[in-house]
Amino acid sequence: MSGRLSIVGLGPGDPDLMTLKASRVVGTAPLVAFFAKAGRVGQARSIVEGRLAPGAEELRFDYPFTIEVPVEDPRYLAEMGVFYEACAEHLLTRLSDGEDVALLCEGDPFFYGSAMYLYDRLKDRAVVEVIPGVTGMSGCWTRAGVPMTHGDDVLSVMPGTLDEAVLAERLANCDAAVIMKVGRNLAKIGRALAVAGLTDRALYVERGAMAGERILPFASMAQTRAPYFSLVLVPGRRRAR
Amino acid sequence: MSGRLSIVGLGPGDPDLMTLKASRVVGTAPLVAFFAKAGRVGQARSIVEGRLAPGAEELRFDYPFTIEVPVEDPRYLAEMGVFYEACAEHLLTRLSDGEDVALLCEGDPFFYGSAMYLYDRLKDRAVVEVIPGVTGMSGCWTRAGVPMTHGDDVLSVMPGTLDEAVLAERLANCDAAVIMKVGRNLAKIGRALAVAGLTDRALYVERGAMAGERILPFASMAQTRAPYFSLVLVPGRRRAR
Repeated sequence: MSGRLSIVGLGPGDPDLMTLKASRVVGTAPLVAFFAKAGRVGQARSIVEGRLAPGAEELRFDYPFTIEVPVEDPRYLAEMGVFYEACAEHLLTRLSDGEDVALLCEGDPFFYGSAMYLYDRLKDRAVVEVIPGVTGMSGCWTRAGVPMTHGDDVLSVMPGTLDEAVLAERLANCDAAVIMKVGRNLAKIGRALAVAGLTDRALYVERGAMAGERILPFASMAQTRAPYFSLVLVPGRRRAR
Repeated sequence: MSGRLSIVGLGPGDPDLMTLKASRVVGTAPLVAFFAKAGRVGQARSIVEGRLAPGAEELRFDYPFTIEVPVEDPRYLAEMGVFYEACAEHLLTRLSDGEDVALLCEGDPFFYGSAMYLYDRLKDRAVVEVIPGVTGMSGCWTRAGVPMTHGDDVLSVMPGTLDEAVLAERLANCDAAVIMKVGRNLAKIGRALAVAGLTDRALYVERGAMAGERILPFASMAQTRAPYFSLVLVPGRRRAR
């Protein structure tokens, strides 16, 4: 009798924004797995602090890179593939032993989540359930107090890693936008927003719904770099209604 | 002492996907307001069935239209404006009397939610908090078992009400897509997917994460109309990793 793998979306950071189902699974799982950057607590793990079952075993998967390796770099794909493969085999061993495992995932697992790579490898070889969560971007636009999409708005979610011209074009072709992976791309994003004529509508959100949150108009920013957990929001059309 | 308005995102339909915070607010609010189509229970209200505080008062706002009036129709904007204004004034009276109110909202309030129009009217006149929720689309892609966005994917969320050529162009300019408001636009969406070369990647999800759920490859669909609570999903690039 094999165990069940529950891939648990934990929401944007505030433990109170976990779903009832996620909270129950996290609070009863005998074995809790999570990804983390080497030397860090891990964002997912920090959300469930104090909420694991007494005696729960923790299984930590350290990402192979501690600094960002560009996704285009062939080393990235190769090394991440080896890493995810090893994680999946490890989980499969435990599941085959009949153990239930909760794999923690910040935000929503199928929305830019690392857990997808384990889901792809395990879905046909084990009993796998996925529990959706509130996305980080929902947490951010709620904290910022900006209704994002109205009626017939088109929303585009894009990474700040795109080329400047592509970013500007994508921004010009939607009504509302979320730019993720701001980090070292901040200056480029600023130029693309200007080209698209959206600077004055844009908001910068740093660590939204987490400790150390900062929210400010993009136009008022003085800094030139941003941390990983930051977003730029361009709210949609606010039609008079 | 004025009451507090809590705009509560309830998630995609399964009550177990409400957040801990939403569940607590819904279960203790003395006054619970919600929108509904005339003659229907109301999607938001149905999610919280059996979960309201004993003796909670319910305040139902019936939408003025029972059939879809196109958003472009001037009557739509005008009549909806009058409707939302009346709802906001009603809530303000109750809040001014010191009552706390929970305004129910399916999905995530700031993501295509009607509650945004009350938020806009009341945020500077009352104490208003917004509780984000799992979006309907997250519920759908989770139920469909499709990881949606990877690494540097661009996701576009668009209404099926767009012109066919615009739909096709928007679809061609993203990696992953969610098409909302399928309903009577199903045939047009099918043609736009074909133009963009995405028919074989697309999935149709009807009533995802709700009773009566149906999920099938778009290419295998025989029907020509779809209900309101349906979506088309185009998962992003699955790079080998």
